[in-house]
Amino acid sequence: MAGPDSNLSCLLYGPHDVKFEDREVPSINDPHDVIVRIAYVGVCGSDVTQENPLTMGHEASGTVHSIGDSVTTLQPGDDVCIEPGVPCSRCKSCKSGRYNLCPDMAFAASPGPGPATHGCLCRYYKLTESFLYKLPSHVSLEEGVLVEPLAVAVHSNKLAGIKPGHRVVVFGAGPVGILCAAVARQFGAVEVISVDMIAARLEFAKEFAATDTYAPDTSIDGASNAAEIVKRFRLDRGADVVIEATGAEPCVQMGIHVLAPGGTYVQTGCGKPNVMVPMTKLGEKEAIVKGCFRYGSGDFEMAVGFLRDGKIDVKQLISRTVSFREAPDAWESVGRGEGIKTLICGVQEDLKR
Amino acid sequence: MAGPDSNLSCLLYGPHDVKFEDREVPSINDPHDVIVRIAYVGVCGSDVTQENPLTMGHEASGTVHSIGDSVTTLQPGDDVCIEPGVPCSRCKSCKSGRYNLCPDMAFAASPGPGPATHGCLCRYYKLTESFLYKLPSHVSLEEGVLVEPLAVAVHSNKLAGIKPGHRVVVFGAGPVGILCAAVARQFGAVEVISVDMIAARLEFAKEFAATDTYAPDTSIDGASNAAEIVKRFRLDRGADVVIEATGAEPCVQMGIHVLAPGGTYVQTGCGKPNVMVPMTKLGEKEAIVKGCFRYGSGDFEMAVGFLRDGKIDVKQLISRTVSFREAPDAWESVGRGEGIKTLICGVQEDLKR
Amino acid sequence: MAGPDSNLSCLLYGPHDVKFEDREVPSINDPHDVIVRIAYVGVCGSDVTQENPLTMGHEASGTVHSIGDSVTTLQPGDDVCIEPGVPCSRCKSCKSGRYNLCPDMAFAASPGPGPATHGCLCRYYKLTESFLYKLPSHVSLEEGVLVEPLAVAVHSNKLAGIKPGHRVVVFGAGPVGILCAAVARQFGAVEVISVDMIAARLEFAKEFAATDTYAPDTSIDGASNAAEIVKRFRLDRGADVVIEATGAEPCVQMGIHVLAPGGTYVQTGCGKPNVMVPMTKLGEKEAIVKGCFRYGSGDFEMAVGFLRDGKIDVKQLISRTVSFREAPDAWESVGRGEGIKTLICGVQEDLKR
Amino acid sequence: MAGPDSNLSCLLYGPHDVKFEDREVPSINDPHDVIVRIAYVGVCGSDVTQENPLTMGHEASGTVHSIGDSVTTLQPGDDVCIEPGVPCSRCKSCKSGRYNLCPDMAFAASPGPGPATHGCLCRYYKLTESFLYKLPSHVSLEEGVLVEPLAVAVHSNKLAGIKPGHRVVVFGAGPVGILCAAVARQFGAVEVISVDMIAARLEFAKEFAATDTYAPDTSIDGASNAAEIVKRFRLDRGADVVIEATGAEPCVQMGIHVLAPGGTYVQTGCGKPNVMVPMTKLGEKEAIVKGCFRYGSGDFEMAVGFLRDGKIDVKQLISRTVSFREAPDAWESVGRGEGIKTLICGVQEDLKR
Repeated sequence: MAGPDSNLSCLLYGPHDVKFEDREVPSINDPHDVIVRIAYVGVCGSDVTQENPLTMGHEASGTVHSIGDSVTTLQPGDDVCIEPGVPCSRCKSCKSGRYNLCPDMAFAASPGPGPATHGCLCRYYKLTESFLYKLPSHVSLEEGVLVEPLAVAVHSNKLAGIKPGHRVVVFGAGPVGILCAAVARQFGAVEVISVDMIAARLEFAKEFAATDTYAPDTSIDGASNAAEIVKRFRLDRGADVVIEATGAEPCVQMGIHVLAPGGTYVQTGCGKPNVMVPMTKLGEKEAIVKGCFRYGSGDFEMAVGFLRDGKIDVKQLISRTVSFREAPDAWESVGRGEGIKTLICGVQEDLKR
Repeated sequence: MAGPDSNLSCLLYGPHDVKFEDREVPSINDPHDVIVRIAYVGVCGSDVTQENPLTMGHEASGTVHSIGDSVTTLQPGDDVCIEPGVPCSRCKSCKSGRYNLCPDMAFAASPGPGPATHGCLCRYYKLTESFLYKLPSHVSLEEGVLVEPLAVAVHSNKLAGIKPGHRVVVFGAGPVGILCAAVARQFGAVEVISVDMIAARLEFAKEFAATDTYAPDTSIDGASNAAEIVKRFRLDRGADVVIEATGAEPCVQMGIHVLAPGGTYVQTGCGKPNVMVPMTKLGEKEAIVKGCFRYGSGDFEMAVGFLRDGKIDVKQLISRTVSFREAPDAWESVGRGEGIKTLICGVQEDLKR
Repeated sequence: MAGPDSNLSCLLYGPHDVKFEDREVPSINDPHDVIVRIAYVGVCGSDVTQENPLTMGHEASGTVHSIGDSVTTLQPGDDVCIEPGVPCSRCKSCKSGRYNLCPDMAFAASPGPGPATHGCLCRYYKLTESFLYKLPSHVSLEEGVLVEPLAVAVHSNKLAGIKPGHRVVVFGAGPVGILCAAVARQFGAVEVISVDMIAARLEFAKEFAATDTYAPDTSIDGASNAAEIVKRFRLDRGADVVIEATGAEPCVQMGIHVLAPGGTYVQTGCGKPNVMVPMTKLGEKEAIVKGCFRYGSGDFEMAVGFLRDGKIDVKQLISRTVSFREAPDAWESVGRGEGIKTLICGVQEDLKR
Repeated sequence: MAGPDSNLSCLLYGPHDVKFEDREVPSINDPHDVIVRIAYVGVCGSDVTQENPLTMGHEASGTVHSIGDSVTTLQPGDDVCIEPGVPCSRCKSCKSGRYNLCPDMAFAASPGPGPATHGCLCRYYKLTESFLYKLPSHVSLEEGVLVEPLAVAVHSNKLAGIKPGHRVVVFGAGPVGILCAAVARQFGAVEVISVDMIAARLEFAKEFAATDTYAPDTSIDGASNAAEIVKRFRLDRGADVVIEATGAEPCVQMGIHVLAPGGTYVQTGCGKPNVMVPMTKLGEKEAIVKGCFRYGSGDFEMAVGFLRDGKIDVKQLISRTVSFREAPDAWESVGRGEGIKTLICGVQEDLKR
């Protein structure tokens, strides 16, 4: 039983190998440290790629438990959402404002290049002040969890450079895809076409954010599907922007083909390491293809702003909330493609306060 | 025999099917029209992809023969180089300054999307004033031909956004590749590494512009060759910019792998329609991949400026000059990979004046 | 009485010196020419600065009367709005997509640097196809007149680079100022503060687009008023963007002072030739001050899009509509600051069709 | 007498009120701390604006004395130059890569908004690793001092966005002005016109970097002087870029007037708080005026690169080197406008070892 002096955590040791452990309660070392009691953790499809025995979870909200002497922006009791990667702040990438490219990024529960770092599925989580964002008073801790995937969508849209009047095609109608569609509307996109194979997802996308939807015809190739999209939705010479949020090779190809001359394509989804790309078409139309990795400067702020201003109703994405001890089942269920976003409660007694 | 009233032209009817014909001498219809007596035409590897029976040639210089009433920037007798594609000036691409993406571009001897348009390998060539550029007095008509491929390199470098101190890798040491390398130096690149399979080309690249050269090891993959480049030339996390001027799949892959996080890759060369691209790596490092098509606003001006200011000595690229009637042989010889840049003289009596 | 063969026009010969004349009916010379029967012309405060004896008016809508042979985007009977300046399409500014900076711009009824050009307050107006924009079926000809000032606001907002979440201060709540505020909302600005001295204008701005309003305290200086704005509207370190749409010196100063570090200020209004600017503050905060001149590539398209999509209801701005013969009175009345936007009907019998 | 345990420092208590004091020797607190034995300190005209009793000096080089446990990029004995402002690394400005706008910047000897911070004119100076830059082996400690003003010039040129072929006018031929001119050449500017009132400075500018020079005619106004520059140096419609490095009102005005339509003006110099600006001209030509404050991400790296690659020979700027105890005289002499750049040696015995 987890008491106030324990830090009950849920660790992944390998595929389907989950263990609950009492890790050490963190303590304030740096004057900018903040310790958060975790309230909710979201389940993300990418979580299972983790290799080290690490606490799971990188989408999380909670309440400030204690703060270092120099912390000025937060107080104990504040509800916050968590940006789960802390960069070194010293390298060229950090100093130039692209901290998501920091080679020493300590990212929660990630198998990436930086140091192995425990995730948020624990009782107490310590982070530096500047990567915690106070939730507006009318935004719930459940909604706060969704700030992380929303920040992914913000980052993607910023890279895409969407402007009022743009026609946008978003590949994928999973959580990130539909949030990308919703953010595109906020940037002024007048047409946002969600593309997915699953009808139920397209229906939800249409209700949530998309102006139109398209289910690819698998009997024809990417260029033909792209031509069909252009024709059906009267895109003239093509889409101004494509956000690819699946990583699937057919979508990548469709995405390059559907782009208008001079258009921008953002690779937000992650699939096979190598994919076949219509490079001659890309060249002829002077397309811009941008990689997109996590989120960076200002992205969480903008995502929190969309919740504060009631612009994007992320509550609709929460399919189900399970208890802390049910975390392993939640991961299995998400792995089977069930629901849109599943939340795991923090350790129970903290939530009852 | 071509007299002053003939317009002797060299047309391509299909692969290896060249014919000389006397086409009509052009006349001034629009007050901004200019008629040029062609002096030299360059041979370009892309010429042979032409399909219609069209006059060949899109790299050319000449002397102004006659001008329309509204022409103010040129006079008969002026030596000029030719930007061989005239856009519609009315479409969205033209009005926004990206006229190379105009769907109605009339491009000399090109099988592209616009109207079929005769090329420059003729006696008299008509163009509108604003796509002719007066050669500085000390720049020869032979050098003027090289402005076209130099403008390709300028366009590529502008898209790449090269700045002082950048480390650049250029794939391909043919005419366009070495001109890209030379222009990169003008933008301030401190290290320009030319990559090619042919030792003689690398030697020339080194003499002409590159600071270093690399011949890929064909026994290892693109990622390994990229790692070797990074190690050998101490590129830290990779190249700031890659200019790919071959279109070859192994170079595309090597190019993405050799790029630093946040780096920019410009696809200047044209190869197979589809190539396998390391998309996950591209995503993780937030690379920017840009298509690059011909040249646009300001590119010829910058290229002429490099010649005017003695910054790039394009004379070194001219391997051989042949007579007008030898044009078919010149194309065959270039097709066999001989020389760097071969020029074809205009109709002889005009040159003797 | 103007019959179908007359081109009744309203000319300004000098201050308060208006004459009605029958000018020649224009004819199609260029195959891209379009002749428009003018329906409505808007009255703009800048009109009276005209010096030559020229037909007045540069905000106009109408119906296509006849077209040249090469016109493909319009047909007789189409309702259109007019972009009243046609650039040369040949100069460096035009080729680079910044045609509003063309030195040979033929701008309707303007005392600017280009050739003297008659305005739109006439029966028949000729323009080249690419500067006419078809009105969506549900947008009236009255609303079509407002596309021109809306395009000014679009141009200003694009230069400002407004993004979702931005806090914007707009100086001036006249027609251009309130349209700037409305467009800022479309770009995602979360806070748009309209500043004006006149309470009624602020009220209208608040109803139309602004989230908040501020009437400067004339007993304190610009820095103090700026500090008050920052404090009252909790702008942290200042506004992300300032759009100055008055040209008045106190507003310019307030605008620079109210800007956050790294913020952007766009000078949309035009006042005294020289104004006192807090240059040291501008430097320390690395502010960006941008001049803004008319409109350019894509601006009319975006403005028409806002009407098509029902995003901005410009009908609210139309205070009054007068007959063609009442034009002189309309100018006098606008000169006295009456109403927001006054329209002048085209020649009457054309409107009865 | 300063021994190894003393930290002899030169402090300014007010105008002309200099005192030498033994301050505490700094100690490593943070694992990224580095302690530097100061070798040389440059005298800058802006130094005297300091108000608190603080150690003077913000242009400095030295040798690493000791390092914290986590320092990886430097070792004791390394020669370094110093970026003399350390930002908080937590605020919005820092996270977005614009750390020079950090409100909590600890800038050496500066009266700016951040905390009062001692300067470099002392024996031992402590800084965090990431704001120290190792000097290439063939760059002397004397030259290392010049990296700071060179970084100012780099920052200014980056903001200006200079590209090959640009025509640039630089106002001011003091140390910063001539370094701006030199950096502009490195960015590819083909014409760099230095403007100053003092003939000797213009001569030096011409030898060092400028392609041409201009001494304003004080009997005519800014617009007329600008017209004269445009005419004399055949700038067509004006300069592509202006770098203003004096802050003097007549230069500001001349600078706006001399700019081409669409050109960029960077306010690098600092003069009177308020200056009269030709705002209507600025607007009509859509000029961009940018504030410029110190230096930021990548600027010191680029400046060191110019020295490493032999691109800019800053030794020529060093007029005189004085001993540590002569510092007060050096400041007085620079205040009288003597020499280009005066260096002050560090505490003597350290330099002899």
